[in-house]
Formats: sequence, structure tokens, C-alpha cells
Amino acid sequence: MNTLGQILTLTTFGESHGPAIGGVLDGFPAGITVDTEFVARQMQRRRPGQSHVTTGRQEQDEVEFLSGLLDGVSTGAPIAFIIRNTDQHSSDYDELKDLYRPSHADYAWEQRYGIRDWRGGGRSSARVTAPICVAGALAMLAFRKLVPALEITAFTSQIGPYSTDPAKDMDYSADMADSNPVRCPQQELASKMEEYIKELRKEQDSTGGCVTCVVRGIPAGIGNPVFDKLEASLAKAMLGINAAKGFEYGDGFASASQRGSEHNDAFRIENGQIGTATNHSGGIQGGISNGQPIRFRVAFKPTPTIGKEQNTVTRDGRQTTIAAKGRHDPCVVPRAVPVVESLTALVLLDQYLSSK
Amino acid sequence: MNTLGQILTLTTFGESHGPAIGGVLDGFPAGITVDTEFVARQMQRRRPGQSHVTTGRQEQDEVEFLSGLLDGVSTGAPIAFIIRNTDQHSSDYDELKDLYRPSHADYAWEQRYGIRDWRGGGRSSARVTAPICVAGALAMLAFRKLVPALEITAFTSQIGPYSTDPAKDMDYSADMADSNPVRCPQQELASKMEEYIKELRKEQDSTGGCVTCVVRGIPAGIGNPVFDKLEASLAKAMLGINAAKGFEYGDGFASASQRGSEHNDAFRIENGQIGTATNHSGGIQGGISNGQPIRFRVAFKPTPTIGKEQNTVTRDGRQTTIAAKGRHDPCVVPRAVPVVESLTALVLLDQYLSSK
Amino acid sequence: MNTLGQILTLTTFGESHGPAIGGVLDGFPAGITVDTEFVARQMQRRRPGQSHVTTGRQEQDEVEFLSGLLDGVSTGAPIAFIIRNTDQHSSDYDELKDLYRPSHADYAWEQRYGIRDWRGGGRSSARVTAPICVAGALAMLAFRKLVPALEITAFTSQIGPYSTDPAKDMDYSADMADSNPVRCPQQELASKMEEYIKELRKEQDSTGGCVTCVVRGIPAGIGNPVFDKLEASLAKAMLGINAAKGFEYGDGFASASQRGSEHNDAFRIENGQIGTATNHSGGIQGGISNGQPIRFRVAFKPTPTIGKEQNTVTRDGRQTTIAAKGRHDPCVVPRAVPVVESLTALVLLDQYLSSK
Amino acid sequence: MNTLGQILTLTTFGESHGPAIGGVLDGFPAGITVDTEFVARQMQRRRPGQSHVTTGRQEQDEVEFLSGLLDGVSTGAPIAFIIRNTDQHSSDYDELKDLYRPSHADYAWEQRYGIRDWRGGGRSSARVTAPICVAGALAMLAFRKLVPALEITAFTSQIGPYSTDPAKDMDYSADMADSNPVRCPQQELASKMEEYIKELRKEQDSTGGCVTCVVRGIPAGIGNPVFDKLEASLAKAMLGINAAKGFEYGDGFASASQRGSEHNDAFRIENGQIGTATNHSGGIQGGISNGQPIRFRVAFKPTPTIGKEQNTVTRDGRQTTIAAKGRHDPCVVPRAVPVVESLTALVLLDQYLSSK
Repeated sequence: MNTLGQILTLTTFGESHGPAIGGVLDGFPAGITVDTEFVARQMQRRRPGQSHVTTGRQEQDEVEFLSGLLDGVSTGAPIAFIIRNTDQHSSDYDELKDLYRPSHADYAWEQRYGIRDWRGGGRSSARVTAPICVAGALAMLAFRKLVPALEITAFTSQIGPYSTDPAKDMDYSADMADSNPVRCPQQELASKMEEYIKELRKEQDSTGGCVTCVVRGIPAGIGNPVFDKLEASLAKAMLGINAAKGFEYGDGFASASQRGSEHNDAFRIENGQIGTATNHSGGIQGGISNGQPIRFRVAFKPTPTIGKEQNTVTRDGRQTTIAAKGRHDPCVVPRAVPVVESLTALVLLDQYLSSK
Repeated sequence: MNTLGQILTLTTFGESHGPAIGGVLDGFPAGITVDTEFVARQMQRRRPGQSHVTTGRQEQDEVEFLSGLLDGVSTGAPIAFIIRNTDQHSSDYDELKDLYRPSHADYAWEQRYGIRDWRGGGRSSARVTAPICVAGALAMLAFRKLVPALEITAFTSQIGPYSTDPAKDMDYSADMADSNPVRCPQQELASKMEEYIKELRKEQDSTGGCVTCVVRGIPAGIGNPVFDKLEASLAKAMLGINAAKGFEYGDGFASASQRGSEHNDAFRIENGQIGTATNHSGGIQGGISNGQPIRFRVAFKPTPTIGKEQNTVTRDGRQTTIAAKGRHDPCVVPRAVPVVESLTALVLLDQYLSSK
Repeated sequence: MNTLGQILTLTTFGESHGPAIGGVLDGFPAGITVDTEFVARQMQRRRPGQSHVTTGRQEQDEVEFLSGLLDGVSTGAPIAFIIRNTDQHSSDYDELKDLYRPSHADYAWEQRYGIRDWRGGGRSSARVTAPICVAGALAMLAFRKLVPALEITAFTSQIGPYSTDPAKDMDYSADMADSNPVRCPQQELASKMEEYIKELRKEQDSTGGCVTCVVRGIPAGIGNPVFDKLEASLAKAMLGINAAKGFEYGDGFASASQRGSEHNDAFRIENGQIGTATNHSGGIQGGISNGQPIRFRVAFKPTPTIGKEQNTVTRDGRQTTIAAKGRHDPCVVPRAVPVVESLTALVLLDQYLSSK
Repeated sequence: MNTLGQILTLTTFGESHGPAIGGVLDGFPAGITVDTEFVARQMQRRRPGQSHVTTGRQEQDEVEFLSGLLDGVSTGAPIAFIIRNTDQHSSDYDELKDLYRPSHADYAWEQRYGIRDWRGGGRSSARVTAPICVAGALAMLAFRKLVPALEITAFTSQIGPYSTDPAKDMDYSADMADSNPVRCPQQELASKMEEYIKELRKEQDSTGGCVTCVVRGIPAGIGNPVFDKLEASLAKAMLGINAAKGFEYGDGFASASQRGSEHNDAFRIENGQIGTATNHSGGIQGGISNGQPIRFRVAFKPTPTIGKEQNTVTRDGRQTTIAAKGRHDPCVVPRAVPVVESLTALVLLDQYLSSK
């Protein structure tokens, strides 16, 4: 099923080189004013070709809303939207028809369905994250009305050997992250990351990285105790992003080497309100938000498309080699930042609606 | 929803100190012989109180099947089963009625539902993983018939400061893991982990850890491309386990610092079959199995219940302290091993049934 | 899937002659006091063997709640319950092992699953409606708190040649329906129905009938516009009852011969409130309640188990005959009355929770 | 949720007077060749304005496929399609903005969502059935490959006082139904229906009617035992059609006055195969197909939009009257015929895929 969510559901469709990609957002609250400029801005943040550090594809990504709005206000009916695919050069991919690109979905997809859309990765292209950003923007607009204090901030926390200090995760604002093309809120580190990406582009290679996301202002009591836990739903959504390899929240994998006395967040009274002295838990206990900021991190593998020559095989079982032509994006991480934010907004709104 | 899966669904129910816990497994294939001894053995592996390294609670965990079987063979009807709660001492928990235990679900649950079953953690108790092991055992039995080559092996790969070498993940067998109480297949390391847990018990403290899981013999072509990706479904299931803080598959978080030329798995022909020279991907590409072994790791935080005194607050907002009485399990990781295997079997069978 | 509902879900399990039948009700609001006597009374109404007009099977139908309650109050956790099967004489059914009973599910089930629980109809027994009555009673208790004015009244409106006048559907109370064993609120007609059933019992035959259901006090605005319409969800639930053959709401099939000028319900102001002058629509417009009483009717076929000799075939394809032994229920309709009410309560509560 | 189905899901979107309507069909088998002419032909059959007996709106209904196809063959990815709304005159509806049309969804929708798309019925317009016909055509194309013998034939069986004889339901072919504008396979009756509709148009009134559907060639063993029964899924789908008021299958409501000895379908051996002597059951037993033809009937109320003056109220609670202007369709039944067929194909394919 190409559907995310239980009460608020997003169904996406579309391939890299078909006529259009898009989505249907169902269960969205009625009476929300849709600020289309905000949606466009979010789309713009995801769009490749926006700087020298990303891919060369020029995607215009103009969103057309087809339903669910009356004079720009949501009616409760499903909101469908499409984005036409414009900069498609399917013929560029002709040589991919008969071989499998290493660490791409080509081979696995063909084993699954017996047929494969070889044009630009088809349904497995990173392009499928564009509709997520449209829907995520709508979810953010809903929260502006429902929980005005809620704030979702994601940023690049690692690219190759360069990482931010997790202890400072709470120090960064959305503006700081957006102030440079790699979306790393620590300026000095951002410059190094930028240099590294440029270097990799020359070497026809690519790099992995991490995105960290912080949610402030979420009320306590949002989430579900078993299976549909808030963290489990976030994990599912994040691992659904192309190239994602891992998810951790709160202290995450570092918790494995901690002691209980070190990890536990003692409760205390702050300004007459119940809070915790620390936040190793990352804002979630037993699947439900506890009122502290939610904090998680997502790992991405290096872009599999590289200019360097690699060994591979053809569909009919012959050894061959492949070297991607043209200009490729050595690092998807900066573009994944708005996707992480969008999925976070969608998961939180779905869980919020189910927790009322 | 207390339900996992799409075609094969497991709905669990029950609290730590209610009359019983259990589950309903629906969509299970007809014609599978249920080896109840195998089920009991799996339950036995999860059961606390089985050695000096785990909790003192004596759970008999006898499984009673209520439906869906005719002379021990599945009929296609839902399989319901219950496990009576026997060793309950609700009164032990009386003092927890009016305060919130640090890093437990008490406070978040109460904010969500306005009411809380304070007896032993209620629905948020680790006891809720017992029905998962019953259902997982059934899924394993189904695979014995449907995909006999499939083999799921989980083991303890980290406890506190002691970790196995990820490069050797593929070297271990299920028997090696089960040969010691901490379920670490590397004997020397296992002894150190055991010592560490004993020491923590004396100090009234606890520790986190990791479980690694390897799936061999899974055919290529199992999984789904968007949202319900195989890795996303595994992530959701694993983050649904109590105390889980992170999930990674293949090279996971380490991928973030790799280059594409280093991470990509080149295709090659092995014995006339298409395979890959390496397996950084962890057996999944674009949400679908590629025929290589699946490999992932789950991080767990330290058990929040510790004997050391901690600060906390009461329901009516007064500062107080808490120190757990009695004998507590300083490390849930060894007991999480069969839970990880069970959820893996359930997720794989669900995805297998939807990929046919 | 043996699950009904979207937000409030009921998963049932169990066969006629297995150890127990039961259900798991998930998504039930927290804080509802469960009046177990009310639940028992609802069960009692469904129970066969309660009068000379129904089947001879003595079902005690004692409900055991296993989870989701704390001191009799719902906690938001799934409510599981079981009813032990006591009066089972599986050997009575030995001769059914190798033949297919006419108009029973035996043959179709075997074609579906390749295996069949031949003991008393297995999963296709009318006994599977018992858990529905438990869950329905809980839904009614929830409405007592959430929408105290809501009142669900079902009654027998037809048995064989005897039918109530649909124009008087709104005149009957629950008490009137329960005052006689056939549950027909029109006393004179009830006597004739009773006589007819007695006669059929002598003739070793059975009869069909209808149940009409009226819901008063439902607020306007409950339901969903497309696919999950209120009437569509009711239809699905009702056609899920054993032996149900049809569903109609408002003027139903009679609408087919009406004109618009005759069928349309003109709006008017009553006591300062918007209402309609007539209710041909049956309280639902476009999938959503309009504040008028909901009114629908369900048709049931005659009980397929009859003492008269019938032609049939054996599993290995030989012609044979069958004549049911023992005392059979010539009419399921009176026992279907509480099942219809229960499913109505469940569907309405699910739609109510999704419409808030 | 604007979604139908479990494994094969159709999500529709769009309002009468928005930019476009459409749908996403997910879970559709890979490798099916999509005959777009067949799809267009099915759309043409639903389209209003095609004869003097239907509405005046000229809908071009050109279907644009956006995804899921490669060179006209399904890939397993979701198939999205849209139909632009062209003949919209929203201003025609200006006067409807502030009043509620009798027996339309206006009032109920506004109570549900607090906002209403008043242009031509918005999401509650009959126009929402167009995407169903596109998806239904795809399902039929899938069956051509998967179950070539399967044949779905629907026809008009009643309009106002004119009805076909149910005993002859099996005598009609799809061609016979399509040979006249009212889609009634009995020519003489069709002429009377046509006359009746013309007369009603003059009188500014409308009429209800029934559609009967027959499915031949369906294998035994398709369906599910509880809740998701084949008949329950059909009922839900049919009651989801605008203006539908009832559903019955096999002998339906007539079963209520039958005896078991009359209704039961005796098994017999025909050409070495197990079959039944009669088909009162309508091809389904216990939720599962039994290999006999499936036969059901759907009742529709008269079109609520009529030219005759009717009483109603304004949004601010004043009494007023309304008389629809322009040319209205006095009977939706002939246009509902392809919608019934389409939903049947979708439900059967979903159940077929889940029964394998």
C-alpha cells in the first residue's frame, strides 16, 4: 500500500518519468486555510538544482491542487494534488533497461513485480518524496491552527566525516539550518561539508549523512501504547525515505552503553508544571509524548548513482560495468531535511487526531 | 490500534496484572501444523526468571489456544490464544498509584487517557511482548512449510560497554547465541556481559544494549516500494518493543560516513545466479528483499526500574523520591532476543503474503 | 480480516466447538464504567434455548473480561473477552465431516481454505454473533455517557407470511419488542408468528424473516461522504450476520417505485430547529446523519438446518441425502434482534468517533 | 476514508465543480495490459447527456492516466488517473449557497464539517462515480487475464412501476441491456420505462428504480467468513453509490417469507462437478462464493433534484421554497448500471486477491 497513516492518510503515486507525481491527503481537518505560498516554499526547499551542491535536474515542481479546497479552505474532502514531470529525458536511461544498477532497487523491484519502470528509477526515484513535502506543508498549516506552539526543525547533522555535536541539538533554529546549502546550522562545519561535497563531485563519488529533527511545543499525551507507538510510527515514516538506513530517538544507540541511573529522566516541577530534568528519552515514553521536545536522527546511505565505474550484471546474466553519466547529486542529505520535517508533521498530525 | 500487519495481523491485548494477556493472529495460512512444543520453547526463551541474570518474576506463561486450529492444524480462521497472569502481586504496586516512575510510561499514559493502570506498568509492561512470541512462533512454523530455507537468528550484540564486532554478524548460529544466559554468541564476551549485569544488580542499577538479527534464505522480491517498505515495517515493529531506542539495517548509521564507491554492492554472477559481492545494503533495496541476508540491529535503553533512589513527583505535584524494591532485571536485552526474532517472522510473513 | 470498524475495531474469534469464542474491542474510549449486568442481560437476549421457539442448545454464555478494565472502568487499552464453549457435542457432527449441508458454508469454506472445521459449522456458526453482543453492549454503555439521548431499538418485523406495517415502525419501544419470545412489538401478530414457528418445528422445517431497527436521538453530522458512508457501514455490518440476505434503509426498495416529489423530505423549522417534515430518507443523507431517526431493515433467510430430508453430495462426489437430527431452531430472527442492535451500536460509535 | 478495498484499494477524490476528479488504484496486479479504449467505452456508458432520457450536462470525461503504467502495461505501482471538470457553471449554483436542498447532503455535510462546497453538490455529487468506472474497467481487464470466464452483467430491473421478472434474471446478456437508453434488457418494458421518464421530465418530477447484477464464471472459494464476507463487501460498495437505498442478494427480502425446504439449494453432481440444483443463495454461502452465479439487486431513490416547487429552509433558519431550474435527470438508474458493474469488479478482484 502506498499509503501512510491511519486517520490522516497520505496516498502517493507517480514515477520519476511518468506524466505526473502526486498524492491524496484524506482525513485532513476541515476549515484550514491553505497558504499556497507556504506550500510552494516547502517544495522549493526539497527541489534539486537549487544550488551547486545538489543534482542538476531542473524540477519546476509546480503543485496543482485538484480537490478538497473551497476558496483556499479545506472542506474535509480528500485533498488531491499533482506535480507534472517536466524535465524528463527518458532516453537518457535507455541503457539502464537491460542492466541492474548497484545498490538501486532495479533488481529487487523486478523480482517483485516481473516488470520494471527503468526510466530514472521509476517508483523508487527520490522524486517520490515531492508529494510528501506538499502534504507535510498542509499538516504544518493545520498545526498552526490546532497547536500553534508546535515547531518542527530538522537539519543536517552529519555528512561523511563531519558531524554536529548531539549535545547541541536543541541550540539550533530552522533559520540557522536554512542559511547554507547543506542545511547544517553550524556555519563552520557547513563550509567543510560543502567543500567535501564539491570534492566528491570531482571524484565522481558520493557520501552518506544524517538528519536530526527536533519537535518543540508538542503537548503530552499524543501517541499510542502498542505497535502504533509515536516513535514506531516515526521510525516507519523515516525508513520509508529513499536511502534511509537507520532511525534513533532520544539518546538512541548511545543508550545501549548507558546505565539506568544515567539515562532515566527524573520528573520535577517547573513553574508549577510537571517536567523532566533531562531528556534522554527524547520526549516519548511508552509510545506517547511526555511534553518534552521530541528529538530523533535519521541515517542516509551515500547516493548509489556515481560516475565511478562499478561492476554489475545484465538482465540476461552477463557481467558488465556501469558508470553514471552526467551530473549527479553526491549527497541527498540536505534535500532530505524538508522531507524529514514533512513526514514528522504528517505522523504527528495523524497521532494527534487519534489521541483526542 | 493494538494491531500489527496488513494481511497477516496480530492484535494483542492484556496488562501486566489483569487476568490474562493474549493475542489474535488473523490471516494466518490454512493447513499449517502447529507444533505446540516449539511454541512453548519460544515462550520459554522470553520468560523472565530463567536465570540469575534476569528478573525475579516467575511467569509460567502457559499458552492456551482458543480458536483457529482443528486437530492442531490451522484452518484459516483467526488463531486466538491467552496466557494467564499468575504471579501477580498488585499490592506490591500500591505506592506507584500516586506517583510517576522516571522514564516509565506512567505520566504520558495518564495524559493520554486520563486514567492509568498503575499495577506493574499495565499495558506498558514488558509482559505485553509474550503474545508476540506466541504469534512469532506460529509465523516461523508457517515459513517451515512455505520457505523452508528461511532462518532467523537474533543475538545480543551489545550490553553496556561490551559489543560484538559487526563484521562477524554472519558468523553466528542460533545455537551459539542460546548457549549462555546473555545470548551473546561470542563466549568470552558473554562472560564479561554476565559479570557486568551481576555487578549492576549489586549496585541497584541497570544497563542498555543491542540485539542484532540476521535472516538467511529469504527469496528476492519480498517487500513493497513506498511507505510499507520491508525495512520500514521492520523498523516500526522493532521500535514497538518496550525500551527500544533505535533501528538500523545493513551498514546503518555507519553508512552516513561512507562513500558510494565504498557502500554500493556490486552485482555479480554466483553459480549462475545473480548476487552481490558485498552486503552493505543488508539484503533490502528500495523496500524489497534482494536475496542477500537481511541484517539489522536494535538498540535498547537501560531498564528504567532501578533500586537506586531517584527524584520524581506525585500526581498532585509534590517532589518526592522513589527507589524500586525487590529484585529487578538490570538488562532486558537477552529477553528481547526472542521478541526481535518473533517480530521479524511476523513482518516477513506479512510481507511475503502480500508479495505473492 | 475478522475485524469490523476503523477507529473502534472489533476483532472476533472462535468456532462453534472450539474451547472458546471471544473478541477484542480496540479504540474504546477510556473512562467508561462497564456495567457487567447490562452486558450479561444483552448476552441473555441473544442466547438460544431461552424459550420454546428457539434452538435446544443450552449456552451459558458467561463472559470473562481479560483486559482493558481497571476496577470496572475502561482504560483505553484493548478490551478482550472470552466465552467458553460448554454445551459442545462435537461427535454429534461426525457424519457431517464427509458431506456438504445444503445452503451451509461447508462447501464454500472448503474451497477457500482446503480444510474445514465440520463441528457445528465451525467459524460459520451463528455462535460467532455472541462476541458481537458483548462488544455492542459496551458501545451502548459508551453512548450512555457520550450521547445519553441515543436509543437503539430493533424488533422482529417479519416472520414468514406475517409482517408488521412499516408505517408504524416509529411506534414501538424496546420493551414492547422484548415482551414476547418472537420479539415482535405487535402482540397479536407476535402470537401468530409463535404459532407459525411451532408448526414449522413439527414439520421439521424453518422460516425466514426480517428485523427492523430504529435509532433515535442521534445528532446530525455523524458519518462520512464516500465509501465509508453511515448507511454503507451499516449495510456491511448487517450483511455480516449469518443468514442475512438484504438491507434497506429509509423507504428502501419501496423508493424504487416512488417519485421525487413523493420521496423528498422537505426541510422545516420545528421549535427553532431545522428538521424535516417526513423521513423517507431514514435519517441519513449523503452518508451522514441528518438528525432524524435512522431506520433500516434486514432480511434473513430460513435456517438452513432442517429435519426434512434433502439431497446433497459427499466430499468424494457421491449423491446422498441428509436430514438434521435433534431439535433445531426453525427461525433465527428473534435471536438476531440483539445482534442487529449490537452492530448498530458498534457502527455508530465508530462513525461518531471519526466524525468528531 | 475515501478508500474502498483491503488489498486492492481505490481512493477517489474530487468535487463536482473543482478542477478535476480522479482516483488512485493501489495493489493492482503487475503485467496487465490496459486497453484504454475499453476504459473510455465504460466511461462513455456512465456519462450523462448521452441520450434524451438523462441529464443535460455535457461531460467529456477524458481520462488521463498519471502513473503505474509503462507502455500501457501495469507495473505494480499505484495507478492514478484524473478527469478534468469542463462543463462547470458554478454560478448556476449561487442560490444554493444559503439554503438546503431537500433530500440532498447539503445540511448533513454542513453539520459534519462546518463548511460545505455548495457548487453542484460538491463531494456528494453523482460525478464522484466517474472515477469508480475507470477503476472498475481496470479490474475487469485484470480479470480477463486472471479469470477469463468471469462475466459481470448489470441491467435496469425497475423504474417506477415497471419491473422485470426476477425469475428471468439469468436470461439477459450485457448486449441486451445496452441496446436501449434505459438499459433494461426486456425491450417492451424498456419502451414503457422510456415513456415514463419522458413524462416525468415534463412534470418536473423524478423516479427511483433498481439495478440487478449477475456474475457468471466466478470460481468457488472467493470471499471471507466474518465481517469481510463477499456479500457484506458488495453491500458496502453498493450502498456507497449516490441515492442507493437497499441491497439484496440471491432471493433477498423474498427469503424472509420462504421456508427452509423451499430456499435451500440442494447439492448435486453436474458433469462430474459439484453444483447446486437451484440458486436461491445467489452464489454465496457463509461469505464465500460457491461457484454458482452471483446475483444481487440494488434499489435507488428518485433523483432529489426536481423542478417542482418544494419547501425548505435557509441556513439562517427561514422557511423558503426551491424549484430546480434547467434540465434535470429524472432517473439515475440507467447511469448507475456501469457503476454497479464497476464496483462489483473492484470488490471481486479485491476478494479474489485476498483469497489466493
